[in-house]
Amino acid sequence: MTQTAEPKSSKTSVLNTVRELAWETREVPAPGPGDVRVKVQRIGVCGSDVHYYTHGRIGNFIVESPLVLGHEVSGTVEAVGENVKRLKVGDRVALEPGVPCRKCSYCKTGHYNLCPEMHFMATPPVDGALSEWVVWPEDFAFKIPDNMSLDAAALIEPLAVGVWAARRGGVKMGDSVAVIGAGPIGCTSLQAAKAAGATTLIAVDLEDFRLEMARKVGATHTINARTEDPVQRIREITAEISGLPISHGGVDVAFETAGSVPTCRMSLEAPRPGGVTVLVGLPPVSEVSLDIVSAASRETDIRGIFRYANCYPAAIELVASGAVDLDMLITQRFTFDQTPEAFVFADTERAKSMKVMIEMGGE
Amino acid sequence: MTQTAEPKSSKTSVLNTVRELAWETREVPAPGPGDVRVKVQRIGVCGSDVHYYTHGRIGNFIVESPLVLGHEVSGTVEAVGENVKRLKVGDRVALEPGVPCRKCSYCKTGHYNLCPEMHFMATPPVDGALSEWVVWPEDFAFKIPDNMSLDAAALIEPLAVGVWAARRGGVKMGDSVAVIGAGPIGCTSLQAAKAAGATTLIAVDLEDFRLEMARKVGATHTINARTEDPVQRIREITAEISGLPISHGGVDVAFETAGSVPTCRMSLEAPRPGGVTVLVGLPPVSEVSLDIVSAASRETDIRGIFRYANCYPAAIELVASGAVDLDMLITQRFTFDQTPEAFVFADTERAKSMKVMIEMGGE
Amino acid sequence: MTQTAEPKSSKTSVLNTVRELAWETREVPAPGPGDVRVKVQRIGVCGSDVHYYTHGRIGNFIVESPLVLGHEVSGTVEAVGENVKRLKVGDRVALEPGVPCRKCSYCKTGHYNLCPEMHFMATPPVDGALSEWVVWPEDFAFKIPDNMSLDAAALIEPLAVGVWAARRGGVKMGDSVAVIGAGPIGCTSLQAAKAAGATTLIAVDLEDFRLEMARKVGATHTINARTEDPVQRIREITAEISGLPISHGGVDVAFETAGSVPTCRMSLEAPRPGGVTVLVGLPPVSEVSLDIVSAASRETDIRGIFRYANCYPAAIELVASGAVDLDMLITQRFTFDQTPEAFVFADTERAKSMKVMIEMGGE
Amino acid sequence: MTQTAEPKSSKTSVLNTVRELAWETREVPAPGPGDVRVKVQRIGVCGSDVHYYTHGRIGNFIVESPLVLGHEVSGTVEAVGENVKRLKVGDRVALEPGVPCRKCSYCKTGHYNLCPEMHFMATPPVDGALSEWVVWPEDFAFKIPDNMSLDAAALIEPLAVGVWAARRGGVKMGDSVAVIGAGPIGCTSLQAAKAAGATTLIAVDLEDFRLEMARKVGATHTINARTEDPVQRIREITAEISGLPISHGGVDVAFETAGSVPTCRMSLEAPRPGGVTVLVGLPPVSEVSLDIVSAASRETDIRGIFRYANCYPAAIELVASGAVDLDMLITQRFTFDQTPEAFVFADTERAKSMKVMIEMGGE
Repeated sequence: MTQTAEPKSSKTSVLNTVRELAWETREVPAPGPGDVRVKVQRIGVCGSDVHYYTHGRIGNFIVESPLVLGHEVSGTVEAVGENVKRLKVGDRVALEPGVPCRKCSYCKTGHYNLCPEMHFMATPPVDGALSEWVVWPEDFAFKIPDNMSLDAAALIEPLAVGVWAARRGGVKMGDSVAVIGAGPIGCTSLQAAKAAGATTLIAVDLEDFRLEMARKVGATHTINARTEDPVQRIREITAEISGLPISHGGVDVAFETAGSVPTCRMSLEAPRPGGVTVLVGLPPVSEVSLDIVSAASRETDIRGIFRYANCYPAAIELVASGAVDLDMLITQRFTFDQTPEAFVFADTERAKSMKVMIEMGGE
Repeated sequence: MTQTAEPKSSKTSVLNTVRELAWETREVPAPGPGDVRVKVQRIGVCGSDVHYYTHGRIGNFIVESPLVLGHEVSGTVEAVGENVKRLKVGDRVALEPGVPCRKCSYCKTGHYNLCPEMHFMATPPVDGALSEWVVWPEDFAFKIPDNMSLDAAALIEPLAVGVWAARRGGVKMGDSVAVIGAGPIGCTSLQAAKAAGATTLIAVDLEDFRLEMARKVGATHTINARTEDPVQRIREITAEISGLPISHGGVDVAFETAGSVPTCRMSLEAPRPGGVTVLVGLPPVSEVSLDIVSAASRETDIRGIFRYANCYPAAIELVASGAVDLDMLITQRFTFDQTPEAFVFADTERAKSMKVMIEMGGE
Repeated sequence: MTQTAEPKSSKTSVLNTVRELAWETREVPAPGPGDVRVKVQRIGVCGSDVHYYTHGRIGNFIVESPLVLGHEVSGTVEAVGENVKRLKVGDRVALEPGVPCRKCSYCKTGHYNLCPEMHFMATPPVDGALSEWVVWPEDFAFKIPDNMSLDAAALIEPLAVGVWAARRGGVKMGDSVAVIGAGPIGCTSLQAAKAAGATTLIAVDLEDFRLEMARKVGATHTINARTEDPVQRIREITAEISGLPISHGGVDVAFETAGSVPTCRMSLEAPRPGGVTVLVGLPPVSEVSLDIVSAASRETDIRGIFRYANCYPAAIELVASGAVDLDMLITQRFTFDQTPEAFVFADTERAKSMKVMIEMGGE
Repeated sequence: MTQTAEPKSSKTSVLNTVRELAWETREVPAPGPGDVRVKVQRIGVCGSDVHYYTHGRIGNFIVESPLVLGHEVSGTVEAVGENVKRLKVGDRVALEPGVPCRKCSYCKTGHYNLCPEMHFMATPPVDGALSEWVVWPEDFAFKIPDNMSLDAAALIEPLAVGVWAARRGGVKMGDSVAVIGAGPIGCTSLQAAKAAGATTLIAVDLEDFRLEMARKVGATHTINARTEDPVQRIREITAEISGLPISHGGVDVAFETAGSVPTCRMSLEAPRPGGVTVLVGLPPVSEVSLDIVSAASRETDIRGIFRYANCYPAAIELVASGAVDLDMLITQRFTFDQTPEAFVFADTERAKSMKVMIEMGGE
C-alpha cells in the first residue's frame, strides 16, 4: 500500500475564541496502521458547530484551546496505512466522526456511543475536519456508492442521528410519529421514521419555512404551534386513526428536536399511552419542570439519545436506495475560503436556512 | 342501533367435495352484541382455498362436511348489533378472518394467532365468506379509509401475512432481505420488508413472470433459480455491500414462501451469520433433511409463522399511505356467479396468475 | 356445573366518606357464564387503599359514592358459571383485580393494563373485595398450588407490580439494581429483580426497619439516606464492580418506589449511562423539576408503570418455586371484623409496618 | 508498570497428533501494550479439547500442526503491558478465550462471537492455555472477586456458554425450560436458566449420574429417556402448570446440549407453541431430518449458539453472588504433570465424569 505517504500541509480553519475563525497550516501525517488519509471535500455546518462558535461551550464541553470545527464530513481516500483492507485510494467516503476505545463494556456490547473514552470530532479537545486533510481509522470511514453525492455523504452524519432516534424510539410499520421541531435534525428524524415504516408523520414548528421542508421530506401533517395547540391536534389526528377515545390519542413515538423547555414538556404529552418520547434536542438548562407523573402513569417511555452507534451503514443504504433524499436539505453553499461567512450566516439567518454546506473541493 | 335487523337470505358457494362447488341459500342472522353484519363485496382467492378445493385437506385440517371457502374479505357494514361502538352502517371494512378466545395466555399476551380455540374462516369446520352476507365481531372488522379500494381491502389479509413475516424476521432500516418464492405471499412479504426499511430486496423464483411482478413491487435484484445459484448470488450481492468476506455474505433476513423442500433448504443458507430465516410457506412433507448444524453454528435463527396477530391496522396504514400498492397484484377478476370458474382458473393457470379476485358486488 | 347457585348475602366493608368504614350486607349473584364465585379469605391492605381511606381520592380517581376497598385478594372457588373450564369448586385462587375490555388494541397486543375500559377493584367507581363473596371472571382467577399459603396468594398482587417493574426495567442476569424506597412495593420489586437474575441489589430508605426487611428479602447493600448520599454510594459500589470510571458508575436499573419528589430526582441519577429508571411510585404533585438533560444525554431510559399485565402466572410460579418468599412481608394481622382497626393501624403506624393482612376466614 | 518484564520459559503440553500429548518449552514474551501476562493455574477439560485429542478435528477445524489445548482458564496476573488500566500484578483472573478484530460490523454491534477474524484458544491454528504462562489482552481477562475459587474462575467459560444459551433463549421469570443432555454444558445452561428466573427446570439424559447432578444444580424434574418418553412427559408437566390443553403443552425454552440426532429432533418438539429451541450441542453430521413444518407452524423459534459474547461479567457475578455454584461440577482433578492421564480419563470414563480439572499450580 502507500506506507510511503508523506506528511501533508493542510490549510485549516481554527476557532481561536468566540466568533474568531483563523486560518492555520497544520501538518497531517501519513496514515498509520488501520488508518486512511482523506482529502476533505464537504463539511456540513451543524448547530453544535455554531454553538461552539458563538458561545465557546456546550454544557460541560468548553473550548479552552484553539479548536477545529466540522464533523459532518465527506471526502476521498488519498492514502492508506498498513493493514487497511476494505478501502483503497480513490474511494469516496463518509467519515463517522466519533472513534471509541473498542475495549470497554459499552464498546463490546454495541453501545460505543457511551464509551467513556470517546474521541469525537469538533468536541473539545478533539479537532474536527475543517481542514484539507484528515487521518481517520478505516472502520469509521464508509465507502459510498457511485450514485451518492459527496453532499449527501457529509449529511450521513445528521441522518445517523435521525436513524438512531428512530431506532431508540422503536418506530415500526404503520406507526404514527410527531417531530417537534422541524430543523435539520427534525427533518432527518422524520425521514428515518418514514423509512422505518411510519405512515402518519406530523411535524410541529413555529416557522412555516421549516414546516414546508418537513412536508417535502415526508410529513403527512404539519402544525404551526403559533396558531394551533400541537398536543390537542396530535391527539385528534391519531385518535381518528386508532378509533380509540381522545384520552388514548397520541402518537406512537414523539421526537423532541427543538431543544427548548416548552417543546420538551410538549413531547411528553404527545405520545399515546404506551408510546415513546425520544429526546433528541436538549434544552440549555439544568432542570426542566415536567409532568412526569402523567407520563409515567401512561407508561410513556422517555428515552434520550447521545449521538449514535452503528448507524452509518444503514443511513448510507437509505440514501443509496432512494428511501431518503438528503440533498434537498441543503439551502446554502459556501466555499472553504468562505468558512467565516458560512458561520456568520448560519448564526444570524437561521430562519432562512436548513442546512449550510461548505464545499472544500470539487467532486 | 339496528337491533331490529332481520335475518338475511344469503347466496353461498359451498365446497361439498373435492372440486365440487355448489350454490346454497343460507340464512344469516341479525348481528348479536358486539357483532356487525357485512355485505361481502370482494373475496381474494388464496392458495389455501385452492388446496382445499383440489385436495379436501391441508395437513390435519380435513374437509369432512360442506365448507364455505374464502377468507380474504372486504365489504360494507349493513347492520350493527348492541354495544358496537366504533363501526356504523355504511362503513367499508376489511375482515380479519380469525377470532380467538380472548381469554387464554396467548390471547392476553398478544399472540392470539396461537390461541388453542381460534375460529378461522375457511378452515374446517369453520365457514369462510364466499356468501352474500357475513356476521363478524366488530373488533375484527377494520374500517378502511376513503382512498382505499375494496380490492386492496380484501388483500389486507395476504399483506398481514407479509407484515407478520417481516415483524417476525425483525426487518430494520437498511437491511437486506431475500424472498424465496415470488408468489402472492412472496410479494406481500417483500412489500412489507421494504416498508419496514429494507433497502436490498432480492427475489428468487423459477418463473420470470413472478420475478417481474416482484420487481414492480420493490425487488432490487431478481434471481431465476433455473439459471443462477441463488445462495451464491445472494452472498455475492450482500458481501459487496457489507465489505465482509464471502463467508459472511448473506441477507439479514430470508423469507421462504415457496413451500418446497429445496427452497426450505436454500432459505437456511441465504442469511448471513447472525441473520434470520422466516419460514412462511411450508413444504407438504412431514420431515425435511436440513443442514441445521451449519445454520445453528452461524447463529441463523429459524422462525416459522402461523397466520398473524395484530397486523391489520398496520397493513391498512401501509396501503392507505401509499407505502404498499396491493391493487397491482390482481391479475384476474371473476364475478361471484363465476366462482367455480375462478377456482378452475386458479388451480390450472398458476403460471399466468398472481392474485385472482372475486367481485361479489359493486363498490 | 353449579348454574343452580343461589345469590349470597355478603357482609361488606364500605368506605362511605373519609375515614368512615361501615358494614353493609350486599347480595352477590350466582356466577354468570365464564365467571366464578369466590369465598374471600385474605385481603392485603395496600397503600392505595389507605390513601382512599384518608384522602377520598388518588389523583383524578375520586370516591364520589360508597366504595368497597381491597384489591389484594385470595380465596376459594365456591361456585362456577357456565363455560368455566379451568377452575372447579374448592380451588384456591389469587384474584387479579383488573379486568379489561378484551377487544381494544391494548388488550389484543398484550398491554391490557392500558385498556381505556379497565374495570379495576377498589378504584372508583369499581368496588373492591372487602366482602365475604365476590364474583370474578375465571381467567382473572388463578389457581394456586397446594404449597402456597392464602396469605402469599393475596400478596401476588404487589408481587405482580414488582414483576412488571422488573420486566419494564429489563433486569437481566448479573445486573445491578437499586430500589429507592424499601416499602412493600420496594421489597417486591427487589424480590422480582433478584428472581430475574440481578446480583447486586441496593436498597435505599430513611428507615432502618425497612432496610432490614429489604436485606431479608435479598438486598446485598443497604443505604440509609439520612446518613449517606445514595447516588454517590450507588456509583461507588457499581463502578468498583464494572471497573469503569465513576462517571460511568450507576446501576443497570433503578426503581423509584417511594413516590416523593426527592426520590424521583434521585432515581434519574442512580443508573449508569445506558441504564434504566423505572418509576413505580409517583409523587403526589403535578410537576417535578428534573435534570432531564443529564438523563437524556446519558441515555438513561425513564419508564413508568401502570399496574401490570400478564404477571400473575409468573408471580405465582416464583412463589411456588421458592424463589420469592412473600409471607415474610406480613408484619400485622387483623380479622375481617377488625377491618376498621386495620386501616387505622395502617394509616398511623407505617414506620412499624410492612404489610397488613386481613384474614377474612380460615384456611 | 512492568514494561521491563522479561520473556518467560513456559512448560507447555502440545498435541502433536491424535492421542499424543508431548511436553515442550516455549518462550512467552513480555506483555505488549494493552496485554497482561498470566500465570496459568487452572484448566478445565472441555469436550472439544477431548475431541481434538481423539479425532484431530472438529468439523472444518483441523489440527494440521502441533496445537496447545485448553481454553477454560484461570490464573494470576504476573506482568502488565503499557496502557493496561484496570488490572494489576497479583489480580486473579478468568480468561475469556476468544479475541475478535474489534473493527467489523459484528464487533461493533455486540456480536463479536461471529467476527470473521476471531482468534480463539485451542481452535486450530490458535494455541490454547495448557502452558505455564500466557499473554492475553487485558479486556478479555476478568478480575474475579476474593470469594471466588480459581476452579470456578476456569469454569466461567462453560457457564458463559450457558448464559449465552439462556439469553438467546430469552429465558424469563417464571419460565419452564428443558435441558436435553445433562453434561457440563447442560448443567451450566440449566444453572443460567434458573438464574434468569426459570422456575420449572426439566433435565433429560440417559444416565442417572448426570440427572442427579442436574438435580443438585437446580433441576425440578428429571427424565431418564431410557424409561420415559421425554416429549410426552414435558408436555404433561407443563400443561398441568399452564392449564392449557396438552396440544399446547411444552416448555418455554428447550436447550439441546447432547449433540445427537435424536436429541436434536426431540428438542424441536419440546417447546410449547410460541416457545424456543436453543441448539447448543450439535450433532456430528451434515444433515438432520427434522419435522420443521410442525415447528414452524407452532412458531417454535430455533436458535443456534456459537460460543458467546459479553457473558463473562454476568457469569462472574452469578458465581460471586452465590446464584450459581460451579465448584460442584468438578468430579476429578489432575495436576499439570498428569495432563496426559487427564485426557485419557476424560476420553474413556465419561459416564463417571462431569468436569475434569487440571491444577496447574497452587492458589
